[in-house]
This record gives sequence, structure tokens and C-alpha cells, in this order.
Amino acid sequence: MMITTSSIELYKEYRSCIQRIADIKNASAVLQWDQETYLPQKGAFFRGQQIATLTEIAHELVTGRKYADILQELVSRNDLPEKELRNVQLSWEEYTRQNKLNSRFVRAMSETVSKSFHAWIEARKENSFAVFEKELEELVVFKKEEASMIGYKHHPYEALMDEFEKGCTVAFLDKTFNNLRPPLKNLLDKIGGKQERDDSFLYLHYPKQQQWDFGIEIIKQLGFDFEAGRQDISEHPFTTSFNSNDVRITTRINENDFSSMLWGCIHETGHALYEQGLPESEYGLPLGSYTSLGIHESQSRLWENNVGRSLPFWKHNYTHLQKVFPEQLKEIRLDQFYSAINKVKPSLIRTEADELTYHFHVMIRYELEKLLIEGNLTAHDIPAYWNEQYAKYLDIKVTDDKHGCLQDVHWSHGSFGYFPTYSLGSFYAAQLFAACKKQNPAIYVYMENGETKVLLEWLRKNIHQYGKQYNSNELCEKATGEHLNIQYFLDYALDKYRNIYKF
Amino acid sequence: MMITTSSIELYKEYRSCIQRIADIKNASAVLQWDQETYLPQKGAFFRGQQIATLTEIAHELVTGRKYADILQELVSRNDLPEKELRNVQLSWEEYTRQNKLNSRFVRAMSETVSKSFHAWIEARKENSFAVFEKELEELVVFKKEEASMIGYKHHPYEALMDEFEKGCTVAFLDKTFNNLRPPLKNLLDKIGGKQERDDSFLYLHYPKQQQWDFGIEIIKQLGFDFEAGRQDISEHPFTTSFNSNDVRITTRINENDFSSMLWGCIHETGHALYEQGLPESEYGLPLGSYTSLGIHESQSRLWENNVGRSLPFWKHNYTHLQKVFPEQLKEIRLDQFYSAINKVKPSLIRTEADELTYHFHVMIRYELEKLLIEGNLTAHDIPAYWNEQYAKYLDIKVTDDKHGCLQDVHWSHGSFGYFPTYSLGSFYAAQLFAACKKQNPAIYVYMENGETKVLLEWLRKNIHQYGKQYNSNELCEKATGEHLNIQYFLDYALDKYRNIYKF
Repeated sequence: MMITTSSIELYKEYRSCIQRIADIKNASAVLQWDQETYLPQKGAFFRGQQIATLTEIAHELVTGRKYADILQELVSRNDLPEKELRNVQLSWEEYTRQNKLNSRFVRAMSETVSKSFHAWIEARKENSFAVFEKELEELVVFKKEEASMIGYKHHPYEALMDEFEKGCTVAFLDKTFNNLRPPLKNLLDKIGGKQERDDSFLYLHYPKQQQWDFGIEIIKQLGFDFEAGRQDISEHPFTTSFNSNDVRITTRINENDFSSMLWGCIHETGHALYEQGLPESEYGLPLGSYTSLGIHESQSRLWENNVGRSLPFWKHNYTHLQKVFPEQLKEIRLDQFYSAINKVKPSLIRTEADELTYHFHVMIRYELEKLLIEGNLTAHDIPAYWNEQYAKYLDIKVTDDKHGCLQDVHWSHGSFGYFPTYSLGSFYAAQLFAACKKQNPAIYVYMENGETKVLLEWLRKNIHQYGKQYNSNELCEKATGEHLNIQYFLDYALDKYRNIYKF
Repeated sequence: MMITTSSIELYKEYRSCIQRIADIKNASAVLQWDQETYLPQKGAFFRGQQIATLTEIAHELVTGRKYADILQELVSRNDLPEKELRNVQLSWEEYTRQNKLNSRFVRAMSETVSKSFHAWIEARKENSFAVFEKELEELVVFKKEEASMIGYKHHPYEALMDEFEKGCTVAFLDKTFNNLRPPLKNLLDKIGGKQERDDSFLYLHYPKQQQWDFGIEIIKQLGFDFEAGRQDISEHPFTTSFNSNDVRITTRINENDFSSMLWGCIHETGHALYEQGLPESEYGLPLGSYTSLGIHESQSRLWENNVGRSLPFWKHNYTHLQKVFPEQLKEIRLDQFYSAINKVKPSLIRTEADELTYHFHVMIRYELEKLLIEGNLTAHDIPAYWNEQYAKYLDIKVTDDKHGCLQDVHWSHGSFGYFPTYSLGSFYAAQLFAACKKQNPAIYVYMENGETKVLLEWLRKNIHQYGKQYNSNELCEKATGEHLNIQYFLDYALDKYRNIYKF
């Protein structure tokens, strides 16, 4: 069959296979979305089983003979047009990666992950890392084995990172973080010498419904298409997509912390705008999907920080915000508000950190993960190492494990190599925003008038439309004219915080 | 393998197969629920595709070799305990039924159904049955072929009914409806001779939020477990279940028609209480599912009519309702309210009909469907036949096709043999309620005090817990001591309406 079928026909078969798999994965994503938003309490058990069944069926199809044969034949013929070829190559890479791990290993790891997750929950309850230690150590053994089964050029950590940020190397990250550390520390020292900014008014009582309504207005203003998506409430904010015409974000509302809802909304909107901008015609195919987690995070951070925490954005929106919350904000000037939402202060929790200290949280985790995967640190050593690093880099004493090494869920999910993408996101964001600004010098004027369309269109054209057609490195070069360069982030930070802290 | 595996082991395999299929079907049901409640507008296309993929996969597994082999072996061994044997037998019957239709026929019919549905939508828009006629005629040809492929004893219509009400015969229905018609007509004549009851106050403005809140209170009062289900808004009210711990109902609210929301809520709650009462341990298996549509409908009607439109129920709830809607109801006495919600008047739309004239709507459709399937009527003849029957039985002139033969969606879905279950539901409801009342003579006193628990517990014990362990006939006899007997419905109706219309 393979020999006499034209490559175009064969491509159609591939497309139909992979879209069928996508249908199942997306169905599973709907079930997970429902689980986080509307599932009644007692429904959890069978829901877990339903998701597991869909996952299993998708896995059977992805690793099935028929799909593999089509892919292999198409890859070996190598005669498809560029985009189609790219789809097939990426699918083949993914297939090859999946098949390096035998199913016995996958099942055993999945069981360990499940145990780890429960141990992490338990450890958080008891506020004791010791409860999590044994399961985490087991998981590290699995991740090391996974790295060696997958293979890597220079460092086993790269095999794990590949899942999130394809092609990213330890050498590159080491260099990037080494270059970042001194100027960032310098900036933090300067800010530390200045008077602390008052942000107490952000923690007054902000009623739920008004927060929700204001959030929806901002999301609309930024260009989220509510005919192709929606927002709901969940315990932890997230973005999920079932196709580019159905992208859903969630938020949570803390009536005593205005920041929690609003920048959460904007962050998720950034992710969602990317998903809504992916090409519909490539549904289910690699080119219909985001290129990497670093680029995905660049979109959320660009909207959250470069837009949502900028002065031009609030020049447009602050008066309205004051009208919605007169009691809380009528005495607060725009410049005070702007300083408050950009207050820099070392803190214990990564997800609540400001734009600058944030990267020390990431660097500490990155170094720690590398040491674990190299075998130069054991799970047992984590709390001591963690607390020492927070003292060293952020000059802050870790009070307990919940506010220390137990704070993030990632390890308990078996995700190692994920954290660096958070910092990469900020760096890409600054560089992309700078490139857009260079081509649209009046962008701040637009933003002062509530117009962010020019930015969205630039991102649609330079990032979103390509899906996985280019990897993050290529995409960055194509969009900005150069590879990732942290100077953009440093320039942005210096400019912003010099203005706020007056130095 | 089959020979050396014990029947218990083999049963476990069967169980795992059928539960896997149930997971996929339930996942699809979640996607459909989402489609009716929260799906953003543009998401419809890919959602359709995702549901189609899940349906296809479930079908492949249901008709697959492995599943069939296990079933056949277990059926032929015939050595399982009673409940397990019943599950296997029912699954085998279902498998056999499915396999009588070859896949070419199934696909062709599914395409015709799809065309018919669109034609029906179009015909409704243009208010012209002629637009639907050709597709409906094609569909009737398919249904006749289906009946002959499935096989039947006495009448082809029975093969189609079997899907909804297993074992129900044309002889039985003919006899039932023939016995019903004269006394029902007699009752209607008596009521027709009395003054029309005023229900105009039900059509004042009833604000949305208050309606919703009142509805939720009533649903809770009736025993719906909100930890194992939820209510949302959709265009057409429905009940869906993903397992007995996750049962969802929907409602719609018309601010100018109080009845539309409330009795809709109670009706769906009746369905939902059945689903929540099905045995969790039989998830995915026949014994974990309702026995027939007639029995399902008996649950919704029992709560809607025998409870929700009863005087004892409103003796408890009316004062509260008046407090919620003082402007609309403060001048209305309980007996006026009770008469209004039970007003009898022939009308054109089945779903809005009162408890008595309702059955003429069903009888007309039943006779019509039989004639179509027998070949004694063609689609072309429908409007004339329809209008003539409405004149004959309800003495009412059909104004147009939308208020006539185009009103119901069922035919366009390919459902023939469904309508009789609506009437059977009312008959079963009356008989079940009477049996419960016989064993609990104080039930009306309980209801006057807002206590319907005794009724729910009786239904749990006599109906819900059994799932498909008995067919509707057996279940009715077990619960009430006799087969379906319409005298219970006639007694209930006579007693109720004599009281309201004073004769």
C-alpha cells in the first residue's frame, strides 16, 4: 500500500490519524477543565477513571503500528511541501521519543508520580518535607533513567528539558543565568537602598463581583475573543485549549488582594491570545500547537508585565478602576498605584514574587534540579540547600517547608526541566516587546489610549500564526532579528525601576 | 484462553471492557453537556468532530471481536451468579441487536438522520412541512428496513420501540390507549363544561434570579444531591448522567412564564433522582443503568405531577412562594394557584399540554408512526392527517406546521417508537404513587410538611436500586403487585380534577 499511495494521500491518512488522537486528547482536556471548574464533589472518582481511559486510548493510537508506518514512510520519502514535511518530522520525533520509553517503564513511573503527588499533598498538610522525601527520591531515580533512555548530548538535564523547551541546553542556560545574576543583583541592591513602596491599599476589601466585572472588561480590551473562549473560576488559574476556537481561562478572586485576580486574568489572557491565534487549519497537527513553553510563557508575561504593569496601560485604565473602587482608591494617585503594583521585595513564594526577584526563585530551582539529576544532591539534602540559597541570593530566611521547598507542585508531577521556561518567558517577552516597539514607535501612545491591537497583531503575525513551524530560537530570530538576548530584559527592568525608585 | 479461564475471571474482563466503553460514552456525554451549557459559539465545529470521534471509538469497541468473544463464551457457559448473568445477557442482547445492522447501513442511516435534522431546522424556519417531507420519507424507508433487519414478532413498530421500551407490544399499546380514550374524553367533556380557570397571574413578570433561587430550593427539598450533581441553564431542559455521582440537570427561565422554569426543574429532578439512585457498583454495566424510558419518564412525571402539581406540596410551599413574589401572588389564594397550575385546556403544543390532553398528543403521534411504518401513510400525508386528528380528538384547529406536525424533534433524530413512553411514564407514575401511598397512608401529611423523603426512599428501594435488573413490566409488578393498569391514572385524574373543577 505504502509504495503505490501518493505522498499527498499518505499525508491525508497521517492527518486523519493525528487529528483523531487530538480529538481524544482534547476531549480529555474538556473533562479536566470541568474537573477544575464545575465537577460536583462526589464525581471525582469516576472522572479520574474516564480521563485515564481517554489517556490510555490516545497513547495506544500514538504508539500504534499503523500511525508509525505512515510516519516512517513519509519521513523516508521526504518529498512533501515544507509545512507538511515539518508536521511529519515533528510527529516522527515525538513518536521516536515516546517509543524510547518502554510501556513497563512508563507505567511504573506513572505510578510513582501518582504516589509522589499524594505524598506532596500530605507533606504540605503536615508542613514537612520529610513526608515527601522518599517518594521524591524514587522519582528522581526514574527521571535519571528516563534521561538516559531518551539520550542527550552534553547533560542528562537536557533530555528532560527537551519536553518543554526543545533544543535548550545547560550550557546556554548556565551562560544566560550567569550573565543575568550580577546586573540583577546590582539592580536589587539599588532598589533595596530606597524607601519601600506602599502597597497596603491593594489589600483592602475589593468585592468579588466588581473584581470579576473589571477583569472581564480588561480581558476584552486586550483582545480575547469571547466567542472563541470563556473565563470561569477555579482554585488555581490556568489556560486550556480544545482548539483555537475554544480556549478557556480561569481565575480566582481574593477579596483582600486585588492583585491576585487582575494580573492572574491578564497572565492567562496572554496564554489564551496565543492559543486563539494558532492556525485553525492545522488543528491537531504540530503546526497547530505552540512552539515551546518558553514562548508560551513569553506571551503571558508580555501581557502581564510589559503591558499590564506598565504606566501607559494604567494611564488609560486607572480612572475607570478608581470609579469601580472609589472607597479603596480615590485617595491614591496613579503614580502611587503604579509603584505599588511594581513593588520589589524579596519574598518566599515564587508565584507571588515581583518581576525581578522572581528570577532568583527560578535560578535556585534550576541549580537544584541539575544537581539532583547529576546525582550531586539527594532529595534528603533539598531543604538545607534550599534555605541556604534563599539566604544567599534573596537574603531571606525560609520559615517552613510550605513556604520553602514544598511550595511548587512540579516535582510531584514528575516535571523536571520546566522551571527555566518561566525565566525564558520573561526574557523573550522583553525582547519581543522591544522589537514590536521598534517597528511601532508610537505603541505607548496607543496603549495610553486603550489600544493594544497593534501589539496583538504584531504577535499574531510574528509568533502565533506559525505554531510549531519554527522552534523558539528560530522564531525569536525571525521576529526580532537576533537570538535570545537578556540585555532587552535588563534594559526594560532598569528603565522601569529607575523611574519608580528614582535612582 | 476461554476454556481455561474461570467464569469469574472472564466476567472481570467483560466488566473492564464495558466500563472502558462507558468511560468513552460518558466522556462524550460531558462534551455534549458542555455544548448545551458553556461552549463558546465558534467552538461548535471541532466539538462536533470530537464527539464524533468518541462515538466512533465506542462503537468500534462495542462491536469488536474481543468483547463479542467474551460475551458469547459467558452466555454459553451460563454459570454466573444471577446479577452477573443478567448483565452479561443484556450486553449480549445489545451486541446482537447492534450487529444485525451492518456498518454500511448504519453509516447511510446516520447520514440521512443528519440531513433530516437540518431539513427539519430549515422547515421550522420556513414554517413549512414540505421542506422536511423528502428527507423524512427517506428516513421512514430506513426505519422500515431497520425494523426488518432487527426482526419482530407481530408488528414492525415493535422492533423500533424495543430500543426505548423493551418488550412493549403494539397489541398492548392499542389496548391501553383504547381503554384510556373513552374515560379520558369523558373527563375532558366534564371539565369543558365548567368555567375556565384563570391562570393569567402565572404570566406576569417573574424576575430571573428569584426564579432560579426558588427552583434550587425546591430541587434541594426534593432530595437532589448537589454534591453528586448540579443544575445549569440551557436552551432546552435536559438531564444527563456521567455516573450516579455526577448527574446534571438544566433548566431555562422565561421571565413571563413562571411555569416554564419550575415544573421543568421538578421534571428534570425526577429524572435525576433516578440516576443518582442507580447502583454505583454497577457503573457502566446494564444493572447500573435505567430500565426503560417509560420507567425513566415515570420518575420525572411522578415528581412533576403527582408531587409538584399536588395540593399537599403547595400547602407547604405556597406561603414561601408568595413571599418571594409578593407583587405577583399576594392577592392569589392557594386554591386559585392550585387550579391555575392544573388548568386543563386543549392546546397545540405537546410539551405545554396539561396532564389530561397530553395523552391525545401522544396517541395521535403513536397512530401516525404506526401507519408510517406499516406503509399505510406516507410523509406527504402527514399534515392533513395530523390536522384532522387534532380536530377530531382535541377539537382544535392547527394554525400552521410549526404548531402542528413540525413541533417535535424526534423524527428528525430518527426516533420512531419513542412517544408512547411519555404516556407510559404517566401511567406508571400514578400506579407507583398509589402503591407508595398504600404502604405509607400518611404520605400527604408528610408532603404538607415539606417531607418527600418517604417517597424518595420508596422509589430508591422499589425502582432505582435495581437498574436494569428487571424490565419495566417485571419492575412494575414487583413494586406494585400488578402489571401496568391505567385505572390508577384514571382514578388519580378523576379525583384531582373533580376537586378542582367541582363536578
